[in-house]
Amino acid sequence: MINVYALSTPNSVRVPFALEELGVDNVLNAINLRKDEQKHADYLAMNPNGKVPVIVDPDGDKLFTLTESGGDPRLFRRKTGRLVPADAFGRARVIEQMFFHLSGVGPAPGQLGFFKRQATEQIFYAIARFQTEAERVLKVLDGTLSRSAFAAGDAFTIADIALFGWLWRREFAGNDFEGTPNIARWYETVAARLAVARAIKRVTALVRPA
Amino acid sequence: MINVYALSTPNSVRVPFALEELGVDNVLNAINLRKDEQKHADYLAMNPNGKVPVIVDPDGDKLFTLTESGGDPRLFRRKTGRLVPADAFGRARVIEQMFFHLSGVGPAPGQLGFFKRQATEQIFYAIARFQTEAERVLKVLDGTLSRSAFAAGDAFTIADIALFGWLWRREFAGNDFEGTPNIARWYETVAARLAVARAIKRVTALVRPA
Ligand SMILES: N[C@@H](CCC(=O)N[C@@H](CS)C(=O)NCC(=O)O)C(=O)O
Ligand SMILES: N[C@@H](CCC(=O)N[C@@H](CS)C(=O)NCC(=O)O)C(=O)O
Repeated sequence: MINVYALSTPNSVRVPFALEELGVDNVLNAINLRKDEQKHADYLAMNPNGKVPVIVDPDGDKLFTLTESGGDPRLFRRKTGRLVPADAFGRARVIEQMFFHLSGVGPAPGQLGFFKRQATEQIFYAIARFQTEAERVLKVLDGTLSRSAFAAGDAFTIADIALFGWLWRREFAGNDFEGTPNIARWYETVAARLAVARAIKRVTALVRPA
Repeated sequence: MINVYALSTPNSVRVPFALEELGVDNVLNAINLRKDEQKHADYLAMNPNGKVPVIVDPDGDKLFTLTESGGDPRLFRRKTGRLVPADAFGRARVIEQMFFHLSGVGPAPGQLGFFKRQATEQIFYAIARFQTEAERVLKVLDGTLSRSAFAAGDAFTIADIALFGWLWRREFAGNDFEGTPNIARWYETVAARLAVARAIKRVTALVRPA
């Protein structure tokens, strides 16, 4: 059985989302970031980077531990063969879009949310920097989604799963979909999938409000 | 013939590095970031994200344009079958490490260099934030490289190519390898490859100092 260590965060939700899409059984284990459980010694032994999610997948007698949410669906493809196109160009496009997410769509709102909500000093310069960058990358994504139904072409792929997390959690940075109608349309389509509804329900149940 | 649009930047160098490793012929075209050529209309038509590198690969009569440096080696694998392990677990590990690079090793020094050298205000809070994060991710990487010869195991893969760029350009953020002996050892091994020497020579020749 696959074990996932996670919380209801933008990066965590991808893993149950992908596993629900693939119909792969898995157990979710809560890691409470508010209690810094991701920095406990036993967790760091699993993921020295001290972040959620972590995926532990039995490989015969051994356990294979994977520490980046983007890495897993390819692993599970071995069992199923879905969510990733078969041809090399199609695959390259999927990877391009996942990398765009990881270096673009993810970090800007992450830093913006931090400087707006969590920093102990109000630094307008930093807020403006990441606000501008967050708006820029959303415009780029909106352009992509004006040319194709999904992030990497006309089919739903793991690139859409990767992109979903930060857009789902957009209130953290305070971004919205005004001015990006193609993202709004894409978001509705993706949010309507049964797998994501199940994944969101499962991750939000992980740690109940105190 | 493959055309690459690039400059001597951390993300650009990956593409000629990978192509030199694979022995795939290619032409490098300079995009002068100091002159903001990456924001010109004709360049934005190729890459709406306005960044280097871009790879244009003929696919029969059509041109396939790829805009993220991490996406390409998989594309070129179609021609060669090297730099990426054949088994699913090995591939998952490579992708994990590339994602760790893109979300960890890359962004922290990038922001650190910006706030240290390019920001029009000196913001100690932001410098300290990204300094701490840059040091943390380098420690995590050092730990990985204490357990295996290369980033994703005992073989040289595209994960090492992806990681190389920011470590090569580490003077931008002012990071060094003191305190991370395993990175130092890995860096020497990777920097000694003929392909990377050729790639560095080619990208640094792209725009000569005025
Ligand atoms: N690139 C990683 C990022 C993981 C990540 O940033 N996780 C956040 C939650 S969304 C976390 O664990 N933060 C806690 C911390 O950094 O201490 C992935 O996609 O898995
Ligand atoms: N994730 C992208 C990042 C590309 C990137 O950040 N390129 C920088 C140079 S290293 C750039 O073009 N900067 C110019 C700008 O942003 O205007 C990739 O790996 O290709």
